[in-house]
Amino acid sequence: MSMNDLERIIRAPGRFKFEEHNVAAHSWKVSQYAMFFATIEENSGATINWKLLYEKTINHDFAEIFIGDIKTPVKHASPELKQMLTHVEEKMMEKFILEEIPAEFQPVFFDRMKEGKDQTIEGKLLELSDKLDQVYESFSELKRGNTDPEFVHMYESALRKILQIPLEKSITYFREVMLQDIMDEESATDVKSITLQILRN
Amino acid sequence: MSMNDLERIIRAPGRFKFEEHNVAAHSWKVSQYAMFFATIEENSGATINWKLLYEKTINHDFAEIFIGDIKTPVKHASPELKQMLTHVEEKMMEKFILEEIPAEFQPVFFDRMKEGKDQTIEGKLLELSDKLDQVYESFSELKRGNTDPEFVHMYESALRKILQIPLEKSITYFREVMLQDIMDEESATDVKSITLQILRN
Amino acid sequence: MSMNDLERIIRAPGRFKFEEHNVAAHSWKVSQYAMFFATIEENSGATINWKLLYEKTINHDFAEIFIGDIKTPVKHASPELKQMLTHVEEKMMEKFILEEIPAEFQPVFFDRMKEGKDQTIEGKLLELSDKLDQVYESFSELKRGNTDPEFVHMYESALRKILQIPLEKSITYFREVMLQDIMDEESATDVKSITLQILRN
Amino acid sequence: MSMNDLERIIRAPGRFKFEEHNVAAHSWKVSQYAMFFATIEENSGATINWKLLYEKTINHDFAEIFIGDIKTPVKHASPELKQMLTHVEEKMMEKFILEEIPAEFQPVFFDRMKEGKDQTIEGKLLELSDKLDQVYESFSELKRGNTDPEFVHMYESALRKILQIPLEKSITYFREVMLQDIMDEESATDVKSITLQILRN
Amino acid sequence: MSMNDLERIIRAPGRFKFEEHNVAAHSWKVSQYAMFFATIEENSGATINWKLLYEKTINHDFAEIFIGDIKTPVKHASPELKQMLTHVEEKMMEKFILEEIPAEFQPVFFDRMKEGKDQTIEGKLLELSDKLDQVYESFSELKRGNTDPEFVHMYESALRKILQIPLEKSITYFREVMLQDIMDEESATDVKSITLQILRN
Amino acid sequence: MSMNDLERIIRAPGRFKFEEHNVAAHSWKVSQYAMFFATIEENSGATINWKLLYEKTINHDFAEIFIGDIKTPVKHASPELKQMLTHVEEKMMEKFILEEIPAEFQPVFFDRMKEGKDQTIEGKLLELSDKLDQVYESFSELKRGNTDPEFVHMYESALRKILQIPLEKSITYFREVMLQDIMDEESATDVKSITLQILRN
Repeated sequence: MSMNDLERIIRAPGRFKFEEHNVAAHSWKVSQYAMFFATIEENSGATINWKLLYEKTINHDFAEIFIGDIKTPVKHASPELKQMLTHVEEKMMEKFILEEIPAEFQPVFFDRMKEGKDQTIEGKLLELSDKLDQVYESFSELKRGNTDPEFVHMYESALRKILQIPLEKSITYFREVMLQDIMDEESATDVKSITLQILRN
Repeated sequence: MSMNDLERIIRAPGRFKFEEHNVAAHSWKVSQYAMFFATIEENSGATINWKLLYEKTINHDFAEIFIGDIKTPVKHASPELKQMLTHVEEKMMEKFILEEIPAEFQPVFFDRMKEGKDQTIEGKLLELSDKLDQVYESFSELKRGNTDPEFVHMYESALRKILQIPLEKSITYFREVMLQDIMDEESATDVKSITLQILRN
Repeated sequence: MSMNDLERIIRAPGRFKFEEHNVAAHSWKVSQYAMFFATIEENSGATINWKLLYEKTINHDFAEIFIGDIKTPVKHASPELKQMLTHVEEKMMEKFILEEIPAEFQPVFFDRMKEGKDQTIEGKLLELSDKLDQVYESFSELKRGNTDPEFVHMYESALRKILQIPLEKSITYFREVMLQDIMDEESATDVKSITLQILRN
Repeated sequence: MSMNDLERIIRAPGRFKFEEHNVAAHSWKVSQYAMFFATIEENSGATINWKLLYEKTINHDFAEIFIGDIKTPVKHASPELKQMLTHVEEKMMEKFILEEIPAEFQPVFFDRMKEGKDQTIEGKLLELSDKLDQVYESFSELKRGNTDPEFVHMYESALRKILQIPLEKSITYFREVMLQDIMDEESATDVKSITLQILRN
Repeated sequence: MSMNDLERIIRAPGRFKFEEHNVAAHSWKVSQYAMFFATIEENSGATINWKLLYEKTINHDFAEIFIGDIKTPVKHASPELKQMLTHVEEKMMEKFILEEIPAEFQPVFFDRMKEGKDQTIEGKLLELSDKLDQVYESFSELKRGNTDPEFVHMYESALRKILQIPLEKSITYFREVMLQDIMDEESATDVKSITLQILRN
Repeated sequence: MSMNDLERIIRAPGRFKFEEHNVAAHSWKVSQYAMFFATIEENSGATINWKLLYEKTINHDFAEIFIGDIKTPVKHASPELKQMLTHVEEKMMEKFILEEIPAEFQPVFFDRMKEGKDQTIEGKLLELSDKLDQVYESFSELKRGNTDPEFVHMYESALRKILQIPLEKSITYFREVMLQDIMDEESATDVKSITLQILRN
């Protein structure tokens, strides 16, 4: 039942948003995107470990049960600070597992602690899907007239990361269909120019 | 982006609840439970089609994009009425897919239309996980003092259905660990007696 | 007390809205508009059955206690599907009345089941008032920068229906005063052009 | 469109409530109760002016557009203070009508300013319906475990006022059916004893 | 504990707002601004009574516990009406203190009743800080596309009052830094022109 | 304007609460309690630095702009982990000040970074007031029937800390008046026994 906690943790806390999203719903959307892109890759000949992909996507923000969705300035902090924070997070998770989880399930939980976004194809699909949701969340604020520059930053940074992920078929689909749809939508902020600028570089 | 719609559809609409749950977050919790029980079954020798389980759990309430979470009285209606409603739902989904989805993805979407709770082991795991979330949601209302008898009804009905699912290891774990934890919790409504009454029958 | 359910049913569920409206508050606004237009018609010589108008306006969405505010795609579905759904709704209402309502009040409740928007002057006033609230609700989203095209669709469709209602004095007032006020308001979406386009046709 | 303001004014502001109610939804419920009791009285031989009843119920809290739902301590203040506040309210309403409403509609709006709860049968039906909603609103808080003594006070005070309204058939129905239902419901606060105590005096 | 009431009283009730602010959080922001400007004045040679400033800022909206945040039309009413309302407010506060507060603390509470915005430097700092929060609250609505003209009115009226407060150093800082920042921000409404227009007069 | 962030940061994130509190409103309540207790101490002969007390109370949670209200498990973590986290917080605040704040205001902001709860009388008054708000927040949940054991823990831990603060007059007042009021209130959880148990030890 402690999973309900993730339903109550709001993404990008502290910022004004027209629409709030909780970590549980975000995880579900990431699972949906990941299944879609994995199907594209499988159709193009790749081999997908579906159990691993399933596990990675639904668990990728599990650590937030322990520390919450850290505020944005932290995420922009120096690499050294980020590393320290990751270390704190890991130690807390470890402590929790050793004290609260029955011995037989401890290995499963220690597995969940590992960073999901590794160099496997499933890790790359997770990275793509997580960043895609960030693209959609920030775009939704921008098109409705949220003037907080942080959402431009979130949009640009997620877009840049996606374009560098080595999943050719998926990224092509993202560029030619999804990004096109975004640029075709009516928007209070000129997201089309922002997008074209990034595509050019 | 239309998936965000499921984030805005609240379960059990129209009833007073201390805490609301959206369909997207519910789907994520169902995926978590399903993965847990599937691991128990796999450890006991069963073969799990992980891709199918993944697909079934994240998509099982997809039809609600079209019709919303139908209010409870409808769910208590006669079998004939329920069947008519299911038919309406299917026709709408079909119409949507043919008009809005590119031809290449239509088969995938038609697949999603199928009832997930079939007689495969993955279908049973979905049924168990979906009902388990109903148990937790109704219990959370009852323990906090929600006096709406509908939540007693929801709790009892989900519990009865779970106890009849032929997944021996999972159901044993549910009875001996999860249900025990529920009965041990402090609660405004006497959920322990309600539970023991059902276990006896 | 089950009337409180309509206070908890949100109109246009699943769509992003800057401001949510529940069915109870909507019904009150419809009653206000209907009384206003009925006064205009009465002043111009029409005879109003005030009891009937009162009844029709406060009860016109009563069926939503049973099925909720059906999502928009259903409302755009084929006539055949709509008819099926209406049939389901009627059957559930009938079932509820026979099982739950004391015999002496059953006739009153069966009366409420009837479609309110008939060809009587009171039925036309209800149709006008219900569509007027749809005009105001969708305009409120559009002027604040909601870019969901569904609200343009809702605005246009309600406007077209209003302009065809045979209540000459009321519709003249609507066109010359209310619609003029809407077109004079500052708005993120160009509602003035949309309106003028429809007025021309 | 300024009627939407009443949708945003919350009843009993400043107090903790498990469920909030806005003035628009409250007005709709009052219209529903009034129609029900008026039917009872009409069936027993009384003559109802339906236009007047309709007008009184939907407009009875219209003044709150100007001043909001005044906080409870004000309502408990001395008669002198209450009178002063009523005077302020009237002056503001008058000022608004003279400055903002077209001359032809000013009489209608001045009519709305009048106190609805007069000694006509429609005035008594309004008083009964308004107090009945207060009974239901406070009971809903008490049964769910709201420990604020103000809700006991609201419940008792509304109940006492209802029992003195000279509408024999309606009050009998209220006592024998509605109050009985309330006393039969499960409740965190002992509303049954509170009710019996008042019925005895 | 009754202070929590101010946490539940929303500023500018009845109006549509993208973001709501409660009176408690507003009071905290006013305390922050006041401390900042008091430091500026102290650095320029003024003597600040910090206890008095502290007291004035955290208590300046305390009367709203009794009557709530009165709706805007009241604030625009005639001076005579405003005076009457202030009188009602004072009488209620007096009554409350005499009946509910232990004798030893009554003097402290009577002190709090006094208008904080007097001609002392602390009174001027309170006036400046209170109006500054009104500037920020209304600007936040305007920049996000709230088209309610009331927020333009709130912005202009607060700005005009600030510019006349005789606190030279603080007002210079406000004009040269804070107002400049506001005018540099992206905004759906043309706040820059509105501001320049007022600065010119 | 970035202070608005603290208005949007909810205390005790991730836990179910009947009522949410933001950090800005909490800070205001702490300022109110601190002024009250400081007056008690001053009346008993102590010397209060009002500027310092004002500063400490309104700024004591300022660091949460950078990292948010860290979830409870972190607060229960080992001293070593807590220290690491404090270090991360300090580094981020330092980085922010050096990069974003004009040189002339940097010293003021560096002052704010210091831990407010030091051994000065003002530091002790802050500690008392901060813990008092935790007592009231957790008690409010417990009395309304929140069964989450974390709120019992929060209540007990804050109470124990308060009873050890060396502010004799204030603590006497807290025990004899405030705590007595809490124990006299009707409550779903037996807070009276919990309190008496702690008072005995």
